[in-house]
Amino acid sequence: MTDQPSCLLIGIAGPSGSGKSFLADRLLQALPDQNGAILSQDHYYRERSDLPLADRQNINYDHPEALEFSLLHTHLQQLRHGKRIVHPLYDFSQHNRRPETAALTPPDYIIVDGILLFAMPELLPLFDLKIYVDTPMDICFIRRLRRDVEERGRTVDSVVQQYLHTVRPMFLQFVAPSRESADLVVAGEGSMGQAVHHITTQLQPLFSQLKKD
Amino acid sequence: MTDQPSCLLIGIAGPSGSGKSFLADRLLQALPDQNGAILSQDHYYRERSDLPLADRQNINYDHPEALEFSLLHTHLQQLRHGKRIVHPLYDFSQHNRRPETAALTPPDYIIVDGILLFAMPELLPLFDLKIYVDTPMDICFIRRLRRDVEERGRTVDSVVQQYLHTVRPMFLQFVAPSRESADLVVAGEGSMGQAVHHITTQLQPLFSQLKKD
Repeated sequence: MTDQPSCLLIGIAGPSGSGKSFLADRLLQALPDQNGAILSQDHYYRERSDLPLADRQNINYDHPEALEFSLLHTHLQQLRHGKRIVHPLYDFSQHNRRPETAALTPPDYIIVDGILLFAMPELLPLFDLKIYVDTPMDICFIRRLRRDVEERGRTVDSVVQQYLHTVRPMFLQFVAPSRESADLVVAGEGSMGQAVHHITTQLQPLFSQLKKD
Repeated sequence: MTDQPSCLLIGIAGPSGSGKSFLADRLLQALPDQNGAILSQDHYYRERSDLPLADRQNINYDHPEALEFSLLHTHLQQLRHGKRIVHPLYDFSQHNRRPETAALTPPDYIIVDGILLFAMPELLPLFDLKIYVDTPMDICFIRRLRRDVEERGRTVDSVVQQYLHTVRPMFLQFVAPSRESADLVVAGEGSMGQAVHHITTQLQPLFSQLKKD
């Protein structure tokens, strides 16, 4: 973006299980002099009350069509211009939006994370920094497997089926090619300490140029 | 090898779960006019009766040191020259060799399969054809996971631990670089029908040159 933003937008994309949330949390801790917030792409899964739960379970949630990116686009534009947004909240157990919403008043920066962020060409110009977390797919799968089996009580077979039928093909079709659009590619296997240092250094001059009323 | 063999040796290497055994079986079926056999690298895991079972369980079985490659080398030389061998048999449940052995009289060809075959420089000249099965590591891991959890009753956690601590690092150190030494790299995700056709066509002229007494 050439216009002067009121709020920096930092995008973090990459496959499911790559370490996007971990990096977002570490960045938030590493920037204590600025006010920041995290906004997840996941909140923008579509409202699907038109479908019964059984049908909602069969939606391909790794395809861009499952998300309301037009709303995310509007919200990111508003945040950049210092405007407060009211965004949906998503309930994974119901595969639907919650009745409640959440308000977000733009702080100095917002870290937006989601697998498909850089696969949507209209979103790309809105980010002041685009970071892709690149982690080998076997490691990503193992992280998903552990989370879904240990924390969510799912069976190995259901995790494998979902991975082979939607997660992996959508990764190959949409996520992997979007790596090209990133400003920075970060290896997501370790503690990412070096990457955090590098990113915070790159962001410092941008903070000093923030438009303030 | 420049000398004329009595028995063709076809090596199949690649990561665990890549589809080596599947390809070996398909080749055996696709070459009905010749007599063939499969010889697995796994039979050459070392005799470790000097260690109690608990210690044998902790050996890194993905490292070349776990195998008696000198014996495999001798056996492959003998087979090439038409000599009968008596090879060890391995018992995975005991992590040790079985008391019994097996005799193998060289047929027209032997398919040798094992993850580390092309990582051993002394073995490379013995193969008439070297095939590397190249399969993405997430797919390899999922195959291992299913086999070990569903067929062998192991826990997800034990499969993941072994994968992260020995299988994956040894793959990166020894198996992946050995791909360079292959004559042919085959994608191991599908039915490998094209590959089987290509390989059998390549082998036909070699069969007609076999040395026979």
